[in-house]
Order: sequence, then C-alpha cells, then structure tokens
Amino acid sequence: MSSEQVSQLKQEILTLQKQAVGANAGEPMYAGNYLLERLEQLGVTQMFGVPGDYNLGFLDLVEDHKNIEWVGNCNELNASYAADGYARVKPKSIGVFLTTFGVGELSAINGLAGDTRKAFSEQVAVLHIVGVPSTSQLKNKPMLHHTLGDGRFDAFEKAAQQFTVAQSHPMSKDTLAAEIDRILVACVTSARPVYLTFPTDLVYAEIPSGRLLTPLETSPPENHVDTQEFVLGEIMKLVKEAQGEAIILVDACAVRHHVIEETRDFVRSTGFPVFSAPMGKSTVWEGYERYGGIYVGAFTRESIKDKVENAKLIISIGSLKSDVNTGNFTDSIPTSRTVELHSNQTRIGFAHYPGISMKRLLPELSVRLAPLHATASQLPVTPFVSPIPDDPSPTITHKWLWPRVAAFFREKDIIVAENGTSSFGILDVPLPKDATFVSQTLWGSIGWTVGSTLGAALAARDLGLGRTILFIGDGSLQLTVQEVSTMIRVGVKPIIFVLNNSGYTIERHVHGRERKYNDIANWKWTSLLSVFQGHDAPVGKSYTTHTKAELSALLDDDAFAAASEIQLVEVTMDKFDAPPTLLRQAELCGQANAYVPRGMEEL
Amino acid sequence: MSSEQVSQLKQEILTLQKQAVGANAGEPMYAGNYLLERLEQLGVTQMFGVPGDYNLGFLDLVEDHKNIEWVGNCNELNASYAADGYARVKPKSIGVFLTTFGVGELSAINGLAGDTRKAFSEQVAVLHIVGVPSTSQLKNKPMLHHTLGDGRFDAFEKAAQQFTVAQSHPMSKDTLAAEIDRILVACVTSARPVYLTFPTDLVYAEIPSGRLLTPLETSPPENHVDTQEFVLGEIMKLVKEAQGEAIILVDACAVRHHVIEETRDFVRSTGFPVFSAPMGKSTVWEGYERYGGIYVGAFTRESIKDKVENAKLIISIGSLKSDVNTGNFTDSIPTSRTVELHSNQTRIGFAHYPGISMKRLLPELSVRLAPLHATASQLPVTPFVSPIPDDPSPTITHKWLWPRVAAFFREKDIIVAENGTSSFGILDVPLPKDATFVSQTLWGSIGWTVGSTLGAALAARDLGLGRTILFIGDGSLQLTVQEVSTMIRVGVKPIIFVLNNSGYTIERHVHGRERKYNDIANWKWTSLLSVFQGHDAPVGKSYTTHTKAELSALLDDDAFAAASEIQLVEVTMDKFDAPPTLLRQAELCGQANAYVPRGMEEL
Repeated sequence: MSSEQVSQLKQEILTLQKQAVGANAGEPMYAGNYLLERLEQLGVTQMFGVPGDYNLGFLDLVEDHKNIEWVGNCNELNASYAADGYARVKPKSIGVFLTTFGVGELSAINGLAGDTRKAFSEQVAVLHIVGVPSTSQLKNKPMLHHTLGDGRFDAFEKAAQQFTVAQSHPMSKDTLAAEIDRILVACVTSARPVYLTFPTDLVYAEIPSGRLLTPLETSPPENHVDTQEFVLGEIMKLVKEAQGEAIILVDACAVRHHVIEETRDFVRSTGFPVFSAPMGKSTVWEGYERYGGIYVGAFTRESIKDKVENAKLIISIGSLKSDVNTGNFTDSIPTSRTVELHSNQTRIGFAHYPGISMKRLLPELSVRLAPLHATASQLPVTPFVSPIPDDPSPTITHKWLWPRVAAFFREKDIIVAENGTSSFGILDVPLPKDATFVSQTLWGSIGWTVGSTLGAALAARDLGLGRTILFIGDGSLQLTVQEVSTMIRVGVKPIIFVLNNSGYTIERHVHGRERKYNDIANWKWTSLLSVFQGHDAPVGKSYTTHTKAELSALLDDDAFAAASEIQLVEVTMDKFDAPPTLLRQAELCGQANAYVPRGMEEL
Repeated sequence: MSSEQVSQLKQEILTLQKQAVGANAGEPMYAGNYLLERLEQLGVTQMFGVPGDYNLGFLDLVEDHKNIEWVGNCNELNASYAADGYARVKPKSIGVFLTTFGVGELSAINGLAGDTRKAFSEQVAVLHIVGVPSTSQLKNKPMLHHTLGDGRFDAFEKAAQQFTVAQSHPMSKDTLAAEIDRILVACVTSARPVYLTFPTDLVYAEIPSGRLLTPLETSPPENHVDTQEFVLGEIMKLVKEAQGEAIILVDACAVRHHVIEETRDFVRSTGFPVFSAPMGKSTVWEGYERYGGIYVGAFTRESIKDKVENAKLIISIGSLKSDVNTGNFTDSIPTSRTVELHSNQTRIGFAHYPGISMKRLLPELSVRLAPLHATASQLPVTPFVSPIPDDPSPTITHKWLWPRVAAFFREKDIIVAENGTSSFGILDVPLPKDATFVSQTLWGSIGWTVGSTLGAALAARDLGLGRTILFIGDGSLQLTVQEVSTMIRVGVKPIIFVLNNSGYTIERHVHGRERKYNDIANWKWTSLLSVFQGHDAPVGKSYTTHTKAELSALLDDDAFAAASEIQLVEVTMDKFDAPPTLLRQAELCGQANAYVPRGMEEL
C-alpha cells in the first residue's frame, strides 16, 4: 500500500473516532508527540537537522517515533536544503528540519529564505523547528551559551520573521496544540516556510490529544460561485474569439500549489499546445505530443518563441516572473491576450479576480473546454526534442552533454540541477514521463542541490519513484560537500555528476573571465566517497570521464544505470564552456550590474 | 620590517601629506579603492569570502591591490569564521569578509552573530561587506535572482541589524567615504561586527581621496580627569584596606579591547597573584611565576577556587560573565570586594563609573600600585602546572591527552580549541609564553574552528608568530570540513588534531547518552588531505594514533613538530570520555533544560 493510501485510510478512521470524543478531550499526550502526529498526518516520513543542547529531549521522541525517521545532517544549512528538496518531490507533504537555538537556527537561515517568501518565491512548504531554552529561562534571560549575551533572546525570531510566512513561539502548554495547527496550516496552504520554537520544558508537557481527530484543514476555500461563473464565461468568450487557438504555459506555482494533476487533466481534455517556463519544467511530460518546450523570453528557441508570443490566447498556470525564469525579463506575452491562473486569484487581460483559485477553477475549465478538443488538437506543435549532435571531437561539451544524458534518463527519475551550467543546460532537453525536475531558479543559492538531493532521494524512496540524479559543478559542490556522507549513511543511491570545469564558470561569464577569484582548489573527486564511508566496507563507485566516448560507455553500462549504489562521476570540461542560454543570461546580468559606466568598458 | 612598523611609518607620511591638502580634496579615486586603503591603514592583509554576481567588480580591485590578499573560501559561513579567527589573532586590526547579496550574506549570518552583539558577546571586530545590485536596481526593485521575489530588498539588512553594531547602506557616492569611515570606527572601537552594502555601480564611482590622509580615530577618548582621579583614590583605599592582598582576574575583554600590554604591565608592576577566566586564557603567560590558573566557578581546582573567592580584593579586568565562562553561573566573587575594569566603565564594589575606560586607567593604576610590589609579590601563588599522569593503560584519555599536548606546545603558538571536549580539556593545562588561545566560548557554534583556524594561521603568518594547532572533534569537523582545502590552497601549515570519539560526545553527556542521534558517520580522516589537494603532488601528512605510545612518539618527532607542511592527526578516543569540567557543565546544562519534571527521570 502506498503512503498516500495509508494516509487516506487513517483519515477515515480519524473521522469516525472524532464522533466519539470532543476536540479538546482524549487521552493526554506529550506536546512533542502531538507535533509528530500532526506531521505524520501530513505525510512526513523524515525529519532533518542537527542535534543540539536545546532539542535533545524532543529528539528522543523523534527517534522513538515509528513512522518518522530522524536524518542527522552534517550541518544546519544542509539540513534546511534537505527539507527543501524533500518537499519539492513530495509537494503534498512538507519538509521538516530541526535545529538548536541561536547558532543552529542562524546557520540554516539561508535555507529558509530560499524556500519561500512573503510574496513570490521558490514557494516550498518547509517547517523549521527550533529547540529553545525552557520557558523559565526564556523569561529570565540568563547569559547562556548560544545567546547574544545581551538578553535579546528574540533576535533570532526577528531574523526568522524576514524569511517565513508564519512564526510561533509558544510559552504555555495551553495554546501549544492550536499554535502547532496554525503554523502547519499556514505552511501547507501558502506553500511557504514557517518557524516554530519549542521550549525544552514544553516538549513533555501533557496536552489533550482530542484535536488530532480533526484533520488539518489545508484545502483552499471554495471559489465564490457567481464570480467563478463570470470568470468562466469571460474565458470561454476569449477562447471563442481566438477561434480555439489558445496555448497553455505552465510555471512553478502549478507544482508548489498542488495542481499538477489538474493541469495535466486540463492539457489532456483541451488538446491545446502546452509550453513551460523553466520553473515549471516537468509538470507536463516533455515527451507528450502536445508539449512544445521551454519558453524563457529572448533566450527561447526561435520556433517556440514564435508560437508562444504570437498565440491568439495564452492560458498561464502558476506563473512566477523572476529574472532567470523569464530570460532576464525578456518575456513578451501581451497582457491583453493572457489568462493567468494563480493559487489565490485569476487575471483575465487587465482584470483581476481575487480569491478565484486555480485549484477550483481548473477542473471546471477542463469540462467546459473539452468540446474544443477536436479543433484544438489540430493546432500544430513541433515536438520538443534534443538530438545528440554529431561532433567528432573527444572533448565533452555542454552542447553534447545534455542531449546525451537526456537519453539516459528514465521515467520517474528525479533530476536535480545545481544553479549555473547545470540548471541552464538541462532546460534545453526533454525529461521523461513522470520525471521530477528539482532546481532553485529564483533564489539561486549555490551548493543547495547537495542537501536537496539527499531530501529528494529520501522522498523518492518513500514514494517509490525512480533514480535521483544530480548535476553539479565543482565549485558548488565544495560549499556543501559533507552531505554526501549523509547520503551514504542513510543508504540512498543517487548518481552525482560533478562537472569539473575548474571553478566558478557562470561567474567567469558574468565578470572576471580570467580572474583568480573565480578559480578554486581542484579536488580529487574520485576519492571523496571513500573518505565519507569511513573504515568500513566500501560503498559506492567513482568514475572520471574525460571524453565523450568514456562518458557514453558509462551511461550505456547497465550496472551503472541500475544505480544500485551511490555513484559519483567526474566529468571534466573546459572552464569556459557553458550552455548558450547561460551565456546570454550572464551577459545581461553583467550589463545590469556594470562596474564601469556604459561605453567605458574599453578603457 | 614588521607590518606594524610599516604601518607606523605610513601614518607619519600621511600626517605630513595632510598638511598639504584639505580633507575633501586630493586626487579622485575609485570608491572601492578608498575602502581598501582604509582597510590597509587598519592593518588588514587578507580578505575572506566567496565571489558572486554582485561583488565581482569590487573583487577586481581586491585582486589588484598590492597589500591585501583575496582568500576565496569554500562557503560563506566558513568565510565569516575565517575573518573572526583572523581578528582574534590580530586584535589591533579587523577581520574582513565579502559575500554577495541575499544568498551569500544569509549563509554567513551565524558567523556575524558569533562575532559580537550589541551588549556582551564574543566581541570580535569584523567587517562584513556585501556586494549588492546597482543603486538603480535597488530603487526599482525588479524580481532578481537571489531576491525574495517580493520586492523586499531590505529584509537582509533587517536580519543583519540583529547581529551587528553598525550598518551602512550607501546609495550615493557623496556620502560613501564618510559612511565607510563611520562603520570602520564603530567596528574597531566597539570590537564588534559591522555591515556594509556596496552597490555595484558605486564601486567604481570616483570620490576625493583627501580623507585618507586623516587616519581613523579609533583610540578611546580620554577619561574625565576628576572622575578618574576619584576612582584611582577609591581603588588605592581598597588596596590599603586589603593590606595589599589583592588578586587580579583577567577575562575576554582584555584581549578584545586591546589592553593585553597594559594588563601584562599591571601584573608585572604590582606583583599581585593573577588568575584568568576561560575566555581570558593566555592573556597573561600561564608559566609566569605570579600566575595561578583558570577560575571557572564551581568547576575550578580547589586550590585556585579558594585563592580567588577568598581574596581580600579582586581586581577584574575585562570580565564577561556567560554560563560556560563562569562554570554555569557558579562563580562566587562578592561584589563588595571587587573592582571591575571594563572598556567603557569602571565598577568599585556597587558603584559604577561610566566612561572610565581600562585602556586609560590601567597604566595609571600600574604606576600608583607599583610601590606595593615588594609586599604583593610575597603572596604565595601555587604554580599552574599539569603534570602528565602516569597511566599504564594504552588508551588515549582526556586526563592524559591535555597535559601531554601541553608539553608539545611552544612559545608563540596559536592554540585553537573547538567547542566541546577540546575547549574544556585545554582549559586545564598551561599554555606557553606569548601563545594565543582561540576559542568561541559564549556563542559556541560547532565547526567554527575550521574556518577560524584558516584566519588565525594567516594572521599568525603575517605577524611572524608560531605554529597554528587545532583540536577538534569528528562531529564538529564535519560541519565545515571543506575549509581545510582552503588552508592547503593558501599554503598555511596548521596541525589538526581530530579527536575521533564517534559522534557528539558533549551532547551525549547533556542528554541521550546512547541515542542514535548523537552518532555520526565515521569518516576515513587520514584520506581527507589527499582529496583536497587534487591531482597534484601530495601536500601534507596524515596520521592515526590509537595509543598513548603512538601519539607520544609522534609528538616527540622533530619533523612532525616542525610543522613544515599541513598535518592531520586522528586521535581515537572512547566515545564517553570527556574532561571533568565538561562533565560538570553538561550536567548543569542538562538540569536547566530538563525535559521531564524533576524527580521523574527514573520513570
């Protein structure tokens, strides 16, 4: 039985039990266990983090919990990245990580900021639990270690407020359960990070368990009937005016706000050509006959650009317009010909309809537009393919690499691409059916994928998905490398491609092409796994490939492709080689932040 | 010529030049270079950090600067730790690190918080420079990568405000020089971190260079004459009442506020017995005949405890009372018999004298109390020694380890001790003359010493000091291990002792002795250096020692002791063994944060 089926059955049992007891009654239970039960109800199977003085008691409960596994990370930032990766692969659940007061939580703050923000963002549902001193210490404020030494115990909370959508600092067991419920609901419904401090003495406070019988209400509210009806009418009108020649453009929020299935249904039932923004990649199968490829503003392939920008009507699902996601704001989609569906509003041309959510609207739209399928499916779509170029030179180039690895991918694989050459390179090749694409386009914190690969691989294992495959440059891997050790310890088996291009290649193209500050130490990558596995029996395999033939042979090797153990492949590449889209992005980025007045570059 | 002498000569030249031009005149220069010149005037020889889109132009200037070397770190947190370690070994200068907007700066925020805070703190002078988008982008707020995606470009500044004493966000070249000067003065005079954002377009803005001729005014103001005279009189009165039977207690702020020399003069001229708090260790030579050892509240050796707590008068220099620094607040020094000298005030018994700084007061006090030397120097002091215990068992124990390595130390060595078994173990053994003790007692962020060892070693090389020796547990080293690679790259040659005790030993003693969450992956430590040095010729040596005899033989080996290359020594120890002081601290810490009501532990 899948974890989703189990969770569904449990919900049914809960509903029945609920009829027997009042919400605030029930057997008393430890507050720490209350939190864990709520997390289990949300489908959480792993908790990430680092132990510290103020969270050890809670960790006893986690370690003793039957269905939630503790994954100790090497450091806190990596733990936050792991929770992030976990949540992206299990968008119906949330990612959770635990740190200790002050030192621990601050080390992780960049991870939180990357996960989401108050308005737009990467939008990932992550809960950061911080073990803090006892409520009496919080009140008396002695000069403890891990404090600022000046009695300001709230400085960390203030910092966290900048980067989370909801925070809770319970100081009494009476409000604890309600507080936990409040921030969990905020986490799921906003698809953004939340922050909970847990004082040592409250972890074992006894509270009524009755609330657990009422599942958290996390589905979006119904749309207002009359407004929705009007909106549907307006959209139908536009579709008719366009004589059914509409296209669909899918973006990040379709994934983050759980409308993947609704989007796929919509695409199938209408037959409209469908395209994707970079952050929406893999929401719709890229081999699907009506799928036309990635739209990224001026950086788009000509044939795709023409189709998208000149469509009579564009139905956009979950769009998120950042610089990298729009080809540095070169997207050119006229508002007057666009319908934008969002998690909390719909826009038709210049009109906004607040509160009309895509979760409710999309199924209705699918039904109403289904009759158009016969005409719409006649609109021509150029298949999104990326044939492997015929290039006799042995050097592994980006032009060759990405189509070549695309041929290696399988259904249900998790493809994680680090910012830089990898995230730009992978964009231009199709991913297989039910693949999950994991990348951090907006926040762009380098090194992020190492932690998130750990989380993604655990989530994939839990959901019975395919292999987890990471592409990362040598510079980025150095930031967070120790988390590969955790992968070995918990027994996940990712394939890690290390693109060794001698430093920060993306930065070389932005500025300082030959500068030393873009160089890094050259590591002996093939020895890395052996360091992390300690003195025990060897785990995993490492390879170096210098030529197309070497890498191709490896990719064609069935034992390698089976991914039955962790594998690291060093791929040596020229330090200036980069995917064309990255070169254009870097050029525009460099211009916007020019260090010398325009026109004086030659001086 | 030492870097200090060079800097003195430069100051003289500047003063002469100053007479020729007005402060705001002078040849125009790039604002970025203005900042670098100011840093050079403060004795900065290295800048740490990670390159990123928004700081690359400034990095060109750093790389081209003759006397400031760019040290690229593996990640931002490590960079902030390196700047911290650098500043601790060069307390008359400051530590500097550079990151990029958003992602970079947030990854480093824990480093800043550890460096200092608004009131008490570790108190280390560190400048965090953040390369940010151009002033026009900052005004228009497009949805750039590395932003929160919601237009809140100031969220990072707000977070930084929590952890720095001064911030500057220049938006115009007209105020830039004055702003730079303001935060640098705040950094040095408060001995705490400051934060400067540098927009890409201002780095090459041309500003007058004239201000550079006036050195920054960083010495504390003169004490008010009448108040100081009164204070001196009061202290003399107390010393007389005590019949000259006073003792001196030295703490952290003596180092951070640059009164090391004044403190040593005071000790020599008075002849009073002198003791040290943990954070003041090595300020006074621990082999000095009038030095009696470390006072750490209830955890103090009996003979020392008696001497300190029953002294007729205690003259305390730069005290900083945190939990770990006071034996968990078990210090027992009656206020009525204490004179406290601080950077910004003096306290005599219960009376406070704001504005009377120790920097000015100490030299005066040395002169006035010098006549007492003959009597004071008769007060008996038990030498602070730690003989190597005679223990036939081969197992390396903490009881044996610390006295044994103490015998290995030399004058001018830099001894860096990670939080946990190392920082507690080293406390109990004397360090040699002019040794520098580097540890982060109050903030206690594990993994901190790896970055700070890099910074400390570079500062030591610059000042012509001795070897840099790090003691760190396997758990802590995993957090920040990649910075060992930077040590190899910049050619410093620390000796790294890795105490391999299979996990978080300090946490085992606080809570969860046998819990799995205190276990970590066991790495093959002796292969680490070979990974980091890449495919080139081998650099450095690695050793494993399982017995007292093996470790002793290594310490006695002249080639090893010469530290002519980087060396890593794995020392295997029992996972429950710990220095006695740590056990007592952990016990008290565990009690204060008990997870189960007192008296129910057995249930």
